Amino acid sequence: MTQKVVIGVAGMPGAGKAVLRRVAESMDYSVVVMGDEIREETKRRGLEPTPENIGKVMIGLREEEGATAVTRRCTPKIEEAQSDIVLVDGVRSLDEADEFKRHFTSFSLIAVHSSPEARFQRLSKRKRSDDPKGWDVFHERDLRELSVGQGDVIALADYMIVNERTYDEFKAEVIEVLQAVIQKWRK
Amino acid sequence: MTQKVVIGVAGMPGAGKAVLRRVAESMDYSVVVMGDEIREETKRRGLEPTPENIGKVMIGLREEEGATAVTRRCTPKIEEAQSDIVLVDGVRSLDEADEFKRHFTSFSLIAVHSSPEARFQRLSKRKRSDDPKGWDVFHERDLRELSVGQGDVIALADYMIVNERTYDEFKAEVIEVLQAVIQKWRK
Repeated sequence: MTQKVVIGVAGMPGAGKAVLRRVAESMDYSVVVMGDEIREETKRRGLEPTPENIGKVMIGLREEEGATAVTRRCTPKIEEAQSDIVLVDGVRSLDEADEFKRHFTSFSLIAVHSSPEARFQRLSKRKRSDDPKGWDVFHERDLRELSVGQGDVIALADYMIVNERTYDEFKAEVIEVLQAVIQKWRK
Repeated sequence: MTQKVVIGVAGMPGAGKAVLRRVAESMDYSVVVMGDEIREETKRRGLEPTPENIGKVMIGLREEEGATAVTRRCTPKIEEAQSDIVLVDGVRSLDEADEFKRHFTSFSLIAVHSSPEARFQRLSKRKRSDDPKGWDVFHERDLRELSVGQGDVIALADYMIVNERTYDEFKAEVIEVLQAVIQKWRK
């Protein structure tokens, strides 16, 4: 059996992680979204999926079950994934990254970066229940993400993709980086 | 009097912050190095400037005098700088960035990123007393930097420059980004 290539993706809200998911899907890689676990848990707890509630569950789950609460829920999904290449969206702390590294020897971490200004613009246009309405709400959400260690994973990412230009340029770089990761582990 | 343009620079050890300093100097901008304050303080305390000692003083200074201990020492130097454009190297936490934003209305934050692997390679070649010798020492230093909030500043930077290609490509992007920052505040 070939060892699975597992690609963790980190990035602040609105940075462009969804584009990596879409590109990975179009290439027939499997995609596991860590945030889905949190959204499901929020529902399970009978809470509305507001940004505040999702944020609280994200932090609460880690407090109750430890730093790798979400990672442990995702690991079997990665193992059972159809493709040998699995994109794991939403790595939020070094503990999570380290846990994946322990489980999967072919693990790389990609971070996506956009300026707070660009991310805010982008999120203001989207309409999803956990998207911010004003700058303060946006910034609070950023701080919540950072409080679990999102900044640390971004700082130590193996690859950094900057999303400040056109969609096409960003997408081209995403493809380039994904290919570089796969080549690294498949050579 | 023209408002000073203050450009904060964040980045993990070995990411390439020194290149921004050199480019800024070659453009006759003033440069204030926050790490110099810590190195001076280490000497003042009669300690050898080893990575461990510098790291301890970096953390100790913040514990003793608060999160903006280093920022407050740098602010007068920025105000008295000869150039109207001042590069401040080594912003290590959101508290420091926020303090600079309060003081200087024209403040932008640039982060420089390299993969841990590339940074380790780079630092292993250099010979400076606070450079790591092995991976563990290197990683410990990373974690020390992250413990004061370095990852948070990187994650929320206004501009991200990736340093993974040639020196000339990196330098060209540094110049481009510095010009973009200045244009933003001078328009």
